[in-house]
Amino acid sequence: MEPLLLYVLDLSPAADPATGWTRRDPRTAMLTASDLGATRGDGVFETAVVVDGVPQALDAHLDRFARSAALMDLPVPRREHWRAAVTAMASELSDPDRRRAIKFVMTRGDEAGDGTPSGWLLGFAPGAGPAASVRDSGVAVVLLDRGYRHDVAQTSPWLLQGAKSLSYAVNMAALREARRRGADEVVFTSIDGFVLEGPSSTVIARIDGQYVTPPPEFGILEGTTQGDAFDALRGAAARVATRPVRVDELERADAVWLCSSTRGAVPVRSIDGAARTIDHERTAFMNAHLDARKA
Amino acid sequence: MEPLLLYVLDLSPAADPATGWTRRDPRTAMLTASDLGATRGDGVFETAVVVDGVPQALDAHLDRFARSAALMDLPVPRREHWRAAVTAMASELSDPDRRRAIKFVMTRGDEAGDGTPSGWLLGFAPGAGPAASVRDSGVAVVLLDRGYRHDVAQTSPWLLQGAKSLSYAVNMAALREARRRGADEVVFTSIDGFVLEGPSSTVIARIDGQYVTPPPEFGILEGTTQGDAFDALRGAAARVATRPVRVDELERADAVWLCSSTRGAVPVRSIDGAARTIDHERTAFMNAHLDARKA
Repeated sequence: MEPLLLYVLDLSPAADPATGWTRRDPRTAMLTASDLGATRGDGVFETAVVVDGVPQALDAHLDRFARSAALMDLPVPRREHWRAAVTAMASELSDPDRRRAIKFVMTRGDEAGDGTPSGWLLGFAPGAGPAASVRDSGVAVVLLDRGYRHDVAQTSPWLLQGAKSLSYAVNMAALREARRRGADEVVFTSIDGFVLEGPSSTVIARIDGQYVTPPPEFGILEGTTQGDAFDALRGAAARVATRPVRVDELERADAVWLCSSTRGAVPVRSIDGAARTIDHERTAFMNAHLDARKA
Repeated sequence: MEPLLLYVLDLSPAADPATGWTRRDPRTAMLTASDLGATRGDGVFETAVVVDGVPQALDAHLDRFARSAALMDLPVPRREHWRAAVTAMASELSDPDRRRAIKFVMTRGDEAGDGTPSGWLLGFAPGAGPAASVRDSGVAVVLLDRGYRHDVAQTSPWLLQGAKSLSYAVNMAALREARRRGADEVVFTSIDGFVLEGPSSTVIARIDGQYVTPPPEFGILEGTTQGDAFDALRGAAARVATRPVRVDELERADAVWLCSSTRGAVPVRSIDGAARTIDHERTAFMNAHLDARKA
């Protein structure tokens, strides 16, 4: 990733939601050593892709941002403030020749401060691997134990499953484990045998002709990209369902995808070393729809 | 907490371990928006208390810092560098009238950088609640499910149990849940019925006359303060053991403590609302030993 733009938001109650941010050089320091985002991973984030100067799926991202904040007892993000800032950055960031993305972050603020959250947007060019090639070649996936039962979000909400928090060290460690095993990506599983999600993606599997994805009640993130892919599939008269998916059902799936904002729908070419068929036609269909989104 | 001093370390290979840091105003920004510590909670930390200008239990903290870094595949911290910086700050921070502490942090560095970790020390005055009073009154504890089996550190190392990482949002959420239930502190339990640890403390329980603490193999932090408390108890001919402790054994415990660097040995006055006896004499004995440590 290459940082291109930084807006630091003023999240004090007195700030004007239409203009309450400061444009800064993204390479300059902007966070104190006692900010709870840096010392406790205590904050939430979203990443939206910019197409023709417009942040894709911004409403879905703002919805999830607010849900994550609520799960973590953070102040309610002022929607119009974040919308205005992301929209302004998207228009400034636009480049028809290169993919752009905006990460937006809100932390609990400085531990020594007055309780005002810290907030910023970072505009960047997503990493070296071009999305196009991985959409053709697919990714090698390993299944990794997430350590939790499927119902932990209901029984133990303090475990914050379902919040897109800054405490992502486990997600990063799982991706390193995948690389150690010669794979690219991870699908987490519950200890009671259910498919959950990837560290930064949502799973879609086609089983018995139906496109299925695990439910948010399993403590996983509601996929903004997966949701739009389902809309496209529905529009093409395909059957879709959000329902529990058992790990052994993955064996029967004749195609599997990982969906994320920055890469779209990426086909899975192997799971734990066993080759899987890639449905190039359906992959192209979903990504054509995803790439064309203007909101 | 009141930030008093900030040292930013130069962790490039060329840095001189004896002098490789810069003294900064702790209220100034020092971290970029693309530092993986701030965006992914991807780093490790320790907190040491300063007494008479000396960081207590520094070797134990440096040992654990290195273990945490290894669990997270971070570069090996140069021990002499961190030791020199912490020692220098401790001597500058010393104040015979007030408690001081140093938090030291290493992150994976800037995502857009060359792989050099970010490192800093923050010297501060620990929070409002004076340690002395909580040592008398004790704390009200709730038991909260950590969601994992006791053996998850062995079966699933990517879950990073046993690493003192910056991804502490779950620990902070558990403490908020405790406050919602009218309590002060948390003891996490495994889903298969074992006592684990507190969000920032180690458990000691006295059961059948023996002082016991759960083993690090259960994916919990090896307690630097608990270790020194056990040394003191051994010196007084008490029986101590590091062994699995079942949750139902806590019922039989005639005294329970939570140990941490900043507060020492704090007695538990209730568990899930049921009053527990405080052994004031043993509490004072352990803390006299802990407070007198000069290394």
